[in-house]
Amino acid sequence: MRITDMHITPIAITDPPLLNAAGLHAPYALRIVVELVTDDQIYGLGEVPGSVETEEALKAVCEVVIGQDPFQLNALDAGIRARFSAETSAARGEAPWDKRRLVHVLSAIEVACFDLMGKATGRPVVDLLGGRARDRVPFSAYLFYKYEGAGGPLGMGIDPHATGWAAARQKAALDPAGIVAEAQAMCAEYGFQSIKLKGGAFEPRVEVESMQALQEAFGPDVPLRLDPNAIWKVETAIEWGKKLEGVLEYYEDPVRGQENMARVAQAVNLPLATNMCTTSFDDIPGSIRLNSEAIILSDHHFWGGLRASLGLARICQTFGRGMSMHSNSHVGISLMAMAHLAAAVPNLTYACDTHYPWQSEEVIVGGRRTFEEGALVISDEPGLGIELDRDMLAKLHVQYLTSGLQRRDDEIEMQKVQPGWKFEAVRW
Amino acid sequence: MRITDMHITPIAITDPPLLNAAGLHAPYALRIVVELVTDDQIYGLGEVPGSVETEEALKAVCEVVIGQDPFQLNALDAGIRARFSAETSAARGEAPWDKRRLVHVLSAIEVACFDLMGKATGRPVVDLLGGRARDRVPFSAYLFYKYEGAGGPLGMGIDPHATGWAAARQKAALDPAGIVAEAQAMCAEYGFQSIKLKGGAFEPRVEVESMQALQEAFGPDVPLRLDPNAIWKVETAIEWGKKLEGVLEYYEDPVRGQENMARVAQAVNLPLATNMCTTSFDDIPGSIRLNSEAIILSDHHFWGGLRASLGLARICQTFGRGMSMHSNSHVGISLMAMAHLAAAVPNLTYACDTHYPWQSEEVIVGGRRTFEEGALVISDEPGLGIELDRDMLAKLHVQYLTSGLQRRDDEIEMQKVQPGWKFEAVRW
Repeated sequence: MRITDMHITPIAITDPPLLNAAGLHAPYALRIVVELVTDDQIYGLGEVPGSVETEEALKAVCEVVIGQDPFQLNALDAGIRARFSAETSAARGEAPWDKRRLVHVLSAIEVACFDLMGKATGRPVVDLLGGRARDRVPFSAYLFYKYEGAGGPLGMGIDPHATGWAAARQKAALDPAGIVAEAQAMCAEYGFQSIKLKGGAFEPRVEVESMQALQEAFGPDVPLRLDPNAIWKVETAIEWGKKLEGVLEYYEDPVRGQENMARVAQAVNLPLATNMCTTSFDDIPGSIRLNSEAIILSDHHFWGGLRASLGLARICQTFGRGMSMHSNSHVGISLMAMAHLAAAVPNLTYACDTHYPWQSEEVIVGGRRTFEEGALVISDEPGLGIELDRDMLAKLHVQYLTSGLQRRDDEIEMQKVQPGWKFEAVRW
Repeated sequence: MRITDMHITPIAITDPPLLNAAGLHAPYALRIVVELVTDDQIYGLGEVPGSVETEEALKAVCEVVIGQDPFQLNALDAGIRARFSAETSAARGEAPWDKRRLVHVLSAIEVACFDLMGKATGRPVVDLLGGRARDRVPFSAYLFYKYEGAGGPLGMGIDPHATGWAAARQKAALDPAGIVAEAQAMCAEYGFQSIKLKGGAFEPRVEVESMQALQEAFGPDVPLRLDPNAIWKVETAIEWGKKLEGVLEYYEDPVRGQENMARVAQAVNLPLATNMCTTSFDDIPGSIRLNSEAIILSDHHFWGGLRASLGLARICQTFGRGMSMHSNSHVGISLMAMAHLAAAVPNLTYACDTHYPWQSEEVIVGGRRTFEEGALVISDEPGLGIELDRDMLAKLHVQYLTSGLQRRDDEIEMQKVQPGWKFEAVRW
């Protein structure tokens, strides 16, 4: 089996005006769909965060990928890394290939190869990752402070005919009551049984009060998480963290940097989680030495693929760290890759993050996947268990071309609403 | 695909009177061959060190294994662990199931499942582990001090008609000249391009002089390793270690325990390697904290299987540790499992240990595997690429039954030669 074609399709999916420490989500989130086709006419799919730079990087590795056997993941990995280092040394000083792009490319190709391997062997991807540690993968409600709007061409466009969660997700949520209403609508639709709030958008008091309001509304049995997006000072994180003891399941990236995380970890009786302070294998030794985080949020797009994520899981298990899963805005290819991975990792015992409720478009046949009591059920269908809806892919590619967006920049979007707004690495 | 049968066959293979810190190899080494059969009449093979205790442990997990899909490695792992903890709590205080037996059982079952998965998908095992990082797996010459004899019924039996390595390996090797002759004969036969000496048998001066003699005989380009088997004092290891700087590629387990290893590592300018001081995932945090070893010797039989070994490789890569591979006396099933694993691990960059030259019997069709310039070439044959020679298996099982051996005990064997000899944890 040889890969004969590699199709790289940037897409734009409508995304609501969600707030975070870096600013505001644009009306569209960018993704890239990678399709690998083999000489026996099987195709495999991968999906990664989009940008013109990542698209260029993917184009540059076509020559490495085409002609290769999709089972030869080590050879693909080595070939892609070699292609990247060649580019890096060719354009020294300009750093056109940063590490993040490398892991995205590794991830896109590897996931598409696992989809191919699964289809070629008649096995779901989970079975090529060690088999099912669970049949149902629980996800958590992922709340955001937000402005009114559902994303798309008007930026703040509203569908007056929407009902249920589709109606609720258009509404503004700018205070504890808004967050509770958002959580109730999202959980009613998806059945999520744990809840995360993306913080870092408002002063700490508002965000802590939002968590307290969620606890009051949902009771003590629903695990809650707050992610201040690494924008609090150490003293702020300790002061407010103490008030969150007994409220949170984990406290995600309250501050920036492993040393600051370690200071918070020592002072607050809550497990700290991260996807901002420990984000690569290079960061692991520091995290272990400093004991800065109790839980690592894996993400196969950012750690270099599914096998890398299994390796991260082994590291977490070996050093007594928990493992959870981070998410960006995404469609069904990433969703299913995340779910197959999560199903195969015995120690991925936390409900995974997903932005999926915030999106409305889909590129897979049958449309958006449904959740059962907040969980995805992993089927026995081969590969990722999905087929590409080529009409939707074409439509979302046109949407990308007309969006005018080239990369994510939440600061620019925020400036459209609050002129002169600037990102600050430490705000409170 | 379901596993319908599990055959557990203890075998005894002739083994020469090899010396090590624990005493003397018995005339036979014990192994257990595990064969899993599926409902579509495919069979998969695993091999682990033998003992009546391990045989019992394997029998006890039959009920977990039979009925399972061989792709469900996580479920098998969880089921086997649960079976073990049930036994442990049932017989509290007697510890009938120690961890070592657990990892052997996990390894035997998992390797047989990988063989099954490979045969079911038409893929070599290496392709189910991430594909080939290399096509040829280099092994090292594994030298022992030894008494005259080739093992077997007489204990010291000699074949006067043997030629080449078969003749040489019967001879005694009790001093530097004997070790050099042994190395030359073994390397002439197998083409090995690196050399390890199992030490801990004689006073340090003899062993260091043996290494110096090897360097003189083979020149500076052949990597050399000495393994004093953790029987030296720290001062001894430092004193003689300094003389081995510039001689050794790595210095394996000169002392016992991570803290002692760390003291030697600080004093001697040689990378320390271990398969005695850091032997499980539970030991990894200590090894990292103390910086006690630069190289971990993996062994899928002792770390719980092939996937566990991939996890160990990721840990080694993440923490800047090297990875090499340990061996016990074994036949071709373990040899091929080791080779497929080594082929799939990009950072397993050292030639692997193997006792294979010391054995003469084989349970795989076609007999003993041949090496090309010290390396095994990994074919594209499905699974481990081997078939079971059932006549040889039966013969070696009878040999086990008549051997009178129930488990490895090098101290008892040594006492037959040196009455009153006692193992000492620290001898020099």
